[in-house]
Amino acid sequence: MEAAIVREKLDQAPAILAEHGIDVWLTLVRETLLTRDPSLDLVAGTYCAWQSAFLVSRSGERVAIVGRHDATSVEDLDAYDEVVPYDESIRPGLRGTIERLAPESIALNYSTSDPAADGLTHGLWLVLREALEGTPYVDRVASSAPVVNSLRGRKSASELARIRAAVDETEAILALVGAELRPGLEETEIAALFDAEVSRRGLGYAWEPSHCPAVNAGPDKDIGHSAPSELTTQRGQLLHCDFGVEKDGYCSDLQRVWYLLDDGESEPPLDIRTAWEAVWAAVDSGAAALRPGALGHEVDAAARARLVSAGFPEPKYALGHQLGRSAHDGGTILGPRWDRYGSSPLGTVEEGNVFTLEYGAPVPGRGYVGLEEDVLVTSDGIEWLSTPQRDLWLVG
Amino acid sequence: MEAAIVREKLDQAPAILAEHGIDVWLTLVRETLLTRDPSLDLVAGTYCAWQSAFLVSRSGERVAIVGRHDATSVEDLDAYDEVVPYDESIRPGLRGTIERLAPESIALNYSTSDPAADGLTHGLWLVLREALEGTPYVDRVASSAPVVNSLRGRKSASELARIRAAVDETEAILALVGAELRPGLEETEIAALFDAEVSRRGLGYAWEPSHCPAVNAGPDKDIGHSAPSELTTQRGQLLHCDFGVEKDGYCSDLQRVWYLLDDGESEPPLDIRTAWEAVWAAVDSGAAALRPGALGHEVDAAARARLVSAGFPEPKYALGHQLGRSAHDGGTILGPRWDRYGSSPLGTVEEGNVFTLEYGAPVPGRGYVGLEEDVLVTSDGIEWLSTPQRDLWLVG
Repeated sequence: MEAAIVREKLDQAPAILAEHGIDVWLTLVRETLLTRDPSLDLVAGTYCAWQSAFLVSRSGERVAIVGRHDATSVEDLDAYDEVVPYDESIRPGLRGTIERLAPESIALNYSTSDPAADGLTHGLWLVLREALEGTPYVDRVASSAPVVNSLRGRKSASELARIRAAVDETEAILALVGAELRPGLEETEIAALFDAEVSRRGLGYAWEPSHCPAVNAGPDKDIGHSAPSELTTQRGQLLHCDFGVEKDGYCSDLQRVWYLLDDGESEPPLDIRTAWEAVWAAVDSGAAALRPGALGHEVDAAARARLVSAGFPEPKYALGHQLGRSAHDGGTILGPRWDRYGSSPLGTVEEGNVFTLEYGAPVPGRGYVGLEEDVLVTSDGIEWLSTPQRDLWLVG
Repeated sequence: MEAAIVREKLDQAPAILAEHGIDVWLTLVRETLLTRDPSLDLVAGTYCAWQSAFLVSRSGERVAIVGRHDATSVEDLDAYDEVVPYDESIRPGLRGTIERLAPESIALNYSTSDPAADGLTHGLWLVLREALEGTPYVDRVASSAPVVNSLRGRKSASELARIRAAVDETEAILALVGAELRPGLEETEIAALFDAEVSRRGLGYAWEPSHCPAVNAGPDKDIGHSAPSELTTQRGQLLHCDFGVEKDGYCSDLQRVWYLLDDGESEPPLDIRTAWEAVWAAVDSGAAALRPGALGHEVDAAARARLVSAGFPEPKYALGHQLGRSAHDGGTILGPRWDRYGSSPLGTVEEGNVFTLEYGAPVPGRGYVGLEEDVLVTSDGIEWLSTPQRDLWLVG
């Protein structure tokens, strides 16, 4: 199955290289138990002990140069025209292959902005420069960020099926946990309900298990990446969870909110409803702007302006990030042009991208209204992959 | 528990920085779901979404500069004198901290040879150079490889306890699997026996689960990193397994060999015994050379010469690698001076290092004799962490 996805991604690659004017894309890795270039999953997905090079050309040629003990795994992918095994040094095979392909431009996996396109370590960058020393190719390198953004971002059919399956599992778990909620539960107890289902279903976590799910009961929690604590659910307060699973290598990422009705209440109070509607209005503004050709920061700006004009604090984070093999899948983000995002908000939305849409607002004395949905960019807009939580979930 | 290990490692750091003449060691990471510098586990062990810098000085000062949402996790470690949170850009805090510390030398995590010290991506290298532009510090950087080799390699008390626990689990599983062996079992069935125990005990795998355990039945298997196949155990042949677990973040890595007695046999035939003894003689030669101050390639050479002089093929791999958080833990290796190992075989063995000792020989028509033990380097030699397999295990 993994080999099938690698072949799908490699089949996508030549057209994307042509679009971005790149002749050869080179992924160079080593000891992938210690450092793992995220692009390795696109071009091979196997473990590599020794220095290993995976080259894909604009004309469709695919060559892997790998240590002898790693060669069988790569051959088994049935994805490479040529697998060149070596014993002592990768240099002759690597240099010879590049000289034969004679590219005008070689894309390497480095980027100041996009972590998904920044898997080449600085040490391997130096190794490569030395291997190509004295050839014209040492000066023909460029960042692979545009290539990786398109290749990783345009989900193939199998990838989409896996993301959908991960979202479905997540929604099923959220429903089961929701049925158990009552006042007086500790955040850690609620996290344990999630954990039991993840384990029973044989799933992985979409991010660090200590913070997945994030469980935030009431107003006294510092929202962000802090772990479930001893805070408890209370009547008249909100419970907010941020949760995602990894299933067959692909992730989901959803936020859901419950309100614990106070004595005599049959619906949430006005302060919570106002925040809920403002957050949804902002997310819907972003969703309406999300289509192929839009720039990341434009989509965020539509949502951001709406929330701020409703009198809520400006979120300190982006409206959305891509989702795939990783919960934070890199490439174009739907975010403001802040330095920490580099050029990622300047990227263009493409058909086949999967994004989260997430925004939130604190409600003083109540807790945090935080929404997060997963959507697919279609030819003219979006498809919701998750079932949007249009109403607060009530705990009686 | 993880925080306790981070504090142990940070307590070790100042003396190691002084030994290697480094004023400040800087670990710079970003979106650690996608790329994860292996040194992050030494200095923080937490997830970092935005660009995050962890600085340790020779005088013992520790400063973390992290995104606001990551700050709580870092503060919870109780390991940093100062945690500087930022919202939009890491640059002012990073540049200001380095200017205040005013180091003559800054060690960064890049290395052409050591993957454990090569976690800085090339993109983040460029980000750092830009952040320090116009200061003298941009030209005061050096590879952290000597620092990381010592810090990662000299296991702390808690780290050693975890490695011992991983080895114990591995030996218990090998005993259970051994009791189930009989002629006619497929490699995949044997792997399933391992998998069931790993799952029942709540352990992880020391390397890619598809190749852990490696199971090699008889002589028709390409030894290396190929997955369990439909080959079956047969009388008069060997069964070789390479297996390790991850327990509480630390790994084991052992190879074990069984011989399936043929009709009428009560001990292995001469060809197998000869290979077994030659491999052990080589491993023991290496073990005798393994002590603080020895160079990695010297230890390997002692074993290599012994095996070759006994008439067996020269192994295409190193005698040993370090073991810890990763099954291949980087730093000095006990290997020959081949280009693919870079300068790793030139490193010096240190007290507190944990190494594998592994060598093997094919026996035509029988299979593969491959031994691998885990050892701790003491002040004057080694302690076996695994119970050495001094005799072939026989299946009746």
